[in-house]
Amino acid sequence: MNAHIITIGDEILIGQTLNTNAAYIGSRLIELSIDIKKTSVVGDNEKHILNEFKECFNENDLVIVTGGLGPTHDDITRKCIVKFFNTQLVLNEDVLKDVKNIFSRRGRQVTKLNEDQALVPKNAKVIRNKLGTAPGVWIEKDNKIFIVMPGVPFEMKEMMSSYIMPNLQEKLGKQEFVSTRLILQTTGIPESFLFERLGNIDELLNGAAMAFLPSHYGVKLRITVKDKSVETTNNRLTEIEQKIRNIVGRFVFAKGEETLEEVVGRLLKERELSISLAESCTGGNISNLLTNISGSSDYFERGVVSYSNGSKVEMLQVDEDTIQKYGAVSPEVAQQMSKGIKSISCTDLGLSITGILGPTGATPDKPIGLVFISLCNNKSCIVKKFLFGEDRLLNKQRATQAALDMIRKHILGIQQDD
Amino acid sequence: MNAHIITIGDEILIGQTLNTNAAYIGSRLIELSIDIKKTSVVGDNEKHILNEFKECFNENDLVIVTGGLGPTHDDITRKCIVKFFNTQLVLNEDVLKDVKNIFSRRGRQVTKLNEDQALVPKNAKVIRNKLGTAPGVWIEKDNKIFIVMPGVPFEMKEMMSSYIMPNLQEKLGKQEFVSTRLILQTTGIPESFLFERLGNIDELLNGAAMAFLPSHYGVKLRITVKDKSVETTNNRLTEIEQKIRNIVGRFVFAKGEETLEEVVGRLLKERELSISLAESCTGGNISNLLTNISGSSDYFERGVVSYSNGSKVEMLQVDEDTIQKYGAVSPEVAQQMSKGIKSISCTDLGLSITGILGPTGATPDKPIGLVFISLCNNKSCIVKKFLFGEDRLLNKQRATQAALDMIRKHILGIQQDD
Repeated sequence: MNAHIITIGDEILIGQTLNTNAAYIGSRLIELSIDIKKTSVVGDNEKHILNEFKECFNENDLVIVTGGLGPTHDDITRKCIVKFFNTQLVLNEDVLKDVKNIFSRRGRQVTKLNEDQALVPKNAKVIRNKLGTAPGVWIEKDNKIFIVMPGVPFEMKEMMSSYIMPNLQEKLGKQEFVSTRLILQTTGIPESFLFERLGNIDELLNGAAMAFLPSHYGVKLRITVKDKSVETTNNRLTEIEQKIRNIVGRFVFAKGEETLEEVVGRLLKERELSISLAESCTGGNISNLLTNISGSSDYFERGVVSYSNGSKVEMLQVDEDTIQKYGAVSPEVAQQMSKGIKSISCTDLGLSITGILGPTGATPDKPIGLVFISLCNNKSCIVKKFLFGEDRLLNKQRATQAALDMIRKHILGIQQDD
Repeated sequence: MNAHIITIGDEILIGQTLNTNAAYIGSRLIELSIDIKKTSVVGDNEKHILNEFKECFNENDLVIVTGGLGPTHDDITRKCIVKFFNTQLVLNEDVLKDVKNIFSRRGRQVTKLNEDQALVPKNAKVIRNKLGTAPGVWIEKDNKIFIVMPGVPFEMKEMMSSYIMPNLQEKLGKQEFVSTRLILQTTGIPESFLFERLGNIDELLNGAAMAFLPSHYGVKLRITVKDKSVETTNNRLTEIEQKIRNIVGRFVFAKGEETLEEVVGRLLKERELSISLAESCTGGNISNLLTNISGSSDYFERGVVSYSNGSKVEMLQVDEDTIQKYGAVSPEVAQQMSKGIKSISCTDLGLSITGILGPTGATPDKPIGLVFISLCNNKSCIVKKFLFGEDRLLNKQRATQAALDMIRKHILGIQQDD
């Protein structure tokens, strides 16, 4: 089965909104080994939408559309469905009930505009919307499937999980070939060095495919194996994974899509370790990421965002003379900050970070991108120096990632220096 | 001039990476009033790439491609350009020098793999890469333009700004019609209520176009006017803006793409006010956003991420009995937290936030989504209660947005309650 994903909306076309919907739908279709040929974005323009419907429905077994189903005047997708399939709108009582329910739960009066959302194309199966007012539709014609969902991401995701995935699975039945993917995420090693260290790629992969996906968080390796059974594909992937880990294992922080903060959170929980943070240049970003994880209160005790020198002295027991002598961005102050936050919080680990993220703040001997990170446990305290780039927000992300990776390596007993 | 943007890469197609490149390029082309017909994504597959090149180059005056120019085996875009334009690769000495420079600056040896990036299609103008190793290309044929850039976002952005935008501008010359856009960003009012409050849209717009763009941060209004001169479009937009502000002005936090944290940062700076934060449930997210802004050390003094009850008592002067009596998520504790952080930091404003973001932590009388935000100045202290939804990360974003909007309204003297 091959598929095309269409996203509708001027806001996507002109770059005001990121196309997260196509990404999510793509990632779900891959789970079913559906072959995504292409994705496209068209604006809120009837002619362009109808052209795209025609071309994609001609060339694919499955077309999934999101966007343009809202209640306001600029939402024209439903009108286009009616034209394309030469059908008409009928009132669906279940959907009307859903719309009324959602408004009464929110304690608001339902409006005529919202009631109109219960009008659905006559030839369609309705996909109920549990989180909003616009229903989705599933249309079958000429042995092909045409699905339309609202563009609001969490409403669309709910429909994908509860209705579309199980129904597509049923349509697909049992398949001849199985395609299985493995993701290994690395950090702290540039793409070309990783590539060269891995040596003879063809020999390593033995018929599998591998892609290098670099970002500011590191390089993801995506390995794909196609074979006759899940058992065979899994065995081949395990073998490749082992070979890769033998060569560059210490840079691999996760298998699959687990983020580095999730890895660190999981390790802290498993080892029953608590942590406190003293952030200067990252401004709370490390705390923010660690507390994105449900259950983080088990190991995250507190954080201090000590942006001013005064707050470093008053809240983190940093010595004023040390700041005077070495400057706030120095290994000496970093070490006092991590010792201080650990001591006042009574945690197993204390991490601190201080640096110059730019674009201002550089001095003759301290360039933009200079960052010190310090990590203490009950026995010792280490400080690492980093030199990142020129861009403030990228530096914040890189410094955060480097700090989290220091915690990971420390807990796992992996050597810190490259 | 109409345009098509092509993004190449399996990682985009299968949803592992968001297509931020197409969004950025779209937003830049709009500045030049170039009409973006469609954007599309194809995988790392020679046949699919060549098909897409052919179709898009046939139907458009301008095609912009990103991705697949990297040094590893899965990058095949350059090979496809050579085939599509029936040309060959030649060594470019300038690019070779760039590649060597970038490696020597990083103190690393240049590899053969990287040297090969200096091979460029013979029929192309080369776009030098100031931030990486893969050059871009600009090809003209049949009065049409075909541009290819690397997929690494910051390298691509630099090329767009320093080379492509000025060169496209020159090609376009002076145009007959001018299209001008205005963005008004609102927060704190749902899409359908905003729509209904605005009343007769056609009368309001008088021939202009308006789109409603909802997200978790609020609803953006995008108004577009096409007319004969910039002066006329600007006058018409000013008139529409004034009408909208007369009706829903207090919900409008920004004109253009300024974020709410940028608005708050700017207001604090203009009024010479300092602020300190005590965050429980948002885990440092508000501090993180405020410190994303360069120069934030002028007004952001410190933040405390008081995840544990102990840290609230020890660092924020919260009374242990108050926590016992009312619970950590209560208006009483919120108020003590904001007073505490303001007092120890000696700032003009103190803001605190405490809540239950889920999925765990609810009690019979305190549901998931319950959040209290408190804001103090030298004279008074207010506490607002919010009830958000079920999703932890969405709740974090919404609570952060609500807190920032409380600061904005406070500084501007706008009434807090709806």
